[in-house]
Amino acid sequence: MRVGIIGAGQLARMTLESASALGIDAVVLAETPNESAARTASQVRIGSPHDTVAIRALAAEVDVVTFDHELVDLELLSALESEGVVVWPSSRTLLNSVDKAAMRRLCERHALPGPIFVIIGASDRVDVADLGQLLGWPLVLKAARGGYDGRGVYIVDGPAEGARVIDELQAAGTGIVAEAKVDIVKELAVLVARRPGGETVIWPAVETAQIGGVCREVLLPGSVDPDLAERAEALARQIAEAVDLVGVMAVELFDTTERLLVNELAMRPHNSGHWTQDGSVTSQFENHLRAVLDLPLGSTSMTAPAVASVNIFGGPEGSPSLDDGMAGALAVPGAHVHLYGKETRPGRKLGHVTVTGEDAGTARRLAWSAAAALGTEVPREIGEQIR
Amino acid sequence: MRVGIIGAGQLARMTLESASALGIDAVVLAETPNESAARTASQVRIGSPHDTVAIRALAAEVDVVTFDHELVDLELLSALESEGVVVWPSSRTLLNSVDKAAMRRLCERHALPGPIFVIIGASDRVDVADLGQLLGWPLVLKAARGGYDGRGVYIVDGPAEGARVIDELQAAGTGIVAEAKVDIVKELAVLVARRPGGETVIWPAVETAQIGGVCREVLLPGSVDPDLAERAEALARQIAEAVDLVGVMAVELFDTTERLLVNELAMRPHNSGHWTQDGSVTSQFENHLRAVLDLPLGSTSMTAPAVASVNIFGGPEGSPSLDDGMAGALAVPGAHVHLYGKETRPGRKLGHVTVTGEDAGTARRLAWSAAAALGTEVPREIGEQIR
Repeated sequence: MRVGIIGAGQLARMTLESASALGIDAVVLAETPNESAARTASQVRIGSPHDTVAIRALAAEVDVVTFDHELVDLELLSALESEGVVVWPSSRTLLNSVDKAAMRRLCERHALPGPIFVIIGASDRVDVADLGQLLGWPLVLKAARGGYDGRGVYIVDGPAEGARVIDELQAAGTGIVAEAKVDIVKELAVLVARRPGGETVIWPAVETAQIGGVCREVLLPGSVDPDLAERAEALARQIAEAVDLVGVMAVELFDTTERLLVNELAMRPHNSGHWTQDGSVTSQFENHLRAVLDLPLGSTSMTAPAVASVNIFGGPEGSPSLDDGMAGALAVPGAHVHLYGKETRPGRKLGHVTVTGEDAGTARRLAWSAAAALGTEVPREIGEQIR
Repeated sequence: MRVGIIGAGQLARMTLESASALGIDAVVLAETPNESAARTASQVRIGSPHDTVAIRALAAEVDVVTFDHELVDLELLSALESEGVVVWPSSRTLLNSVDKAAMRRLCERHALPGPIFVIIGASDRVDVADLGQLLGWPLVLKAARGGYDGRGVYIVDGPAEGARVIDELQAAGTGIVAEAKVDIVKELAVLVARRPGGETVIWPAVETAQIGGVCREVLLPGSVDPDLAERAEALARQIAEAVDLVGVMAVELFDTTERLLVNELAMRPHNSGHWTQDGSVTSQFENHLRAVLDLPLGSTSMTAPAVASVNIFGGPEGSPSLDDGMAGALAVPGAHVHLYGKETRPGRKLGHVTVTGEDAGTARRLAWSAAAALGTEVPREIGEQIR
């Protein structure tokens, strides 16, 4: 069994760890030999995810093509599919994570709850004041394609600022999704794995803390009540069927007290699921491989009552290096440190640390303490909570 | 942090999985590019563990040299140490696993319990009848160096057979350890990790089933009573100090009802510790890396009350291939399948499967069921017990 992975970031790197354990041969397509997974893979091909020749060559040497990221060429993938190449998730499924407008239309078609939205094509003329009238100020403008980790998302306060952002995005050739800004009580994420034929497993819903559009921590059970978690998990199952998912998908959700709203979809292992490596019987990376190879999926049960996973970011200039911080981080009881093999740079995501335990509060404090030892600045709002 | 591993078998492969997670750079020295770890490593050097040039080149490019196996050149390692190369475990520690005569002398020096023994040098003359008089018939003859997985161990019934084995081994240039054959009630193993400076962690003692000198399953807690387990763990700690261990060591023990006897030592991650990947907070592979890099050691707590780990062996000609058996194995609830990337061959160790749970009997049945799906023949005596 041989899998080709387009992209060589940390998701590919962690997928390779699972592939090694399962005895699965894996090849990664990296843009440069310095990328996270290119540093650990035994089989690396160099090429862009948009390079037809590179993608075709990769497809020719593997049983299934899958992905580390969503910056892919859907037309090329669709052409390969029609030639008989096995691509999972499929280009039709991927469309819903590559293109936020397609995702919102999907939600509408399946009556999935989301904020009110308006789709603005790359060359559509739009009256921004009318848009504000409809959605309310401030409103959210998102690049339909190409954004990630908070990039490509703008919260605008009035018509002048809105018009400027729309002009800029349209000039860059992208469509726009305008959404009503909702009052978020908390953010949740649900991870689901699905096999061709429909076998589906769902991990328990997690609470995530996003600061500046970037995921800082994942808590389980966090403050999510079981009823809400159950509704979130049911939504994830419904979406997995609607998009005919094969592989792992993350569904990011807003809890707005009245309603649970779909925020984003990712058709791959996801930051909100890194806790599964140490806190679940089967990790998201292993189940992604099992799903795309059409093998039975593994249990998504937790291995402990509580899990906290905290992202490691490069601190400001002069912060300790990862090497210097490692002893301090590993001295934290139960800290599972995962590093991505990247050079430290202020604000760069370098890894994560997961702690499991009896009690979410303790696991969270320990995980932050290990992340801080590795140079991660603790955001003020989180620091106050874990004090 | 950069580690060089001499040898590229499955132990190196699984160590690489942990190195990837910890962001540790690793290089393996393989004899051929087809070996287990050479198939997954991003950095492979080709060379024999006895090739001075290859070993020196490896040492020059890493922070610490460690091992996948014990078929190493102690004199070469000792020379490197005196030149300042960091080698863990050290050549002095390794001597006690490379050479069974040295290990027995160690036991004697430290009053560690073992069978009565006689050491016979490669050119010593010995009266085999006297030997039988002293140790009793049948007695056990072991090649002092070079044996593994039951190879190099002979149980002989009388003087004629004994003389023949001794002649053969001496002709091959190896010394011999002659031991009284003991009545084994069960076999145990204890895994310990120790850092330079002495920080030591010990995993709970396991029961192992050896059939034909080959480990077939590892059970935890198995039928080992807590008092016996505690004594075994104390012995392992004592030995780790006596050999000034740095890294992971496995201590294999015989329970003879009256006494717990030291059987073998291995100065590396060991088959009896594969359960730690899925059943312990920290795996033996991760703690081996942490120890040789002088980083704080991780918790050895179990993640479930019971664990069973069963080795996967190639079945007779015509057995299903691993690829064919994978769906059946992964359909077993909670089965963690680990394959080593080796071609199937009858009797060849190809992987292992670990199941954790509330109850050792259930975990054992499930683990055997997954191993059987992958072509492993269930030994009659075990089949009867799990029926």
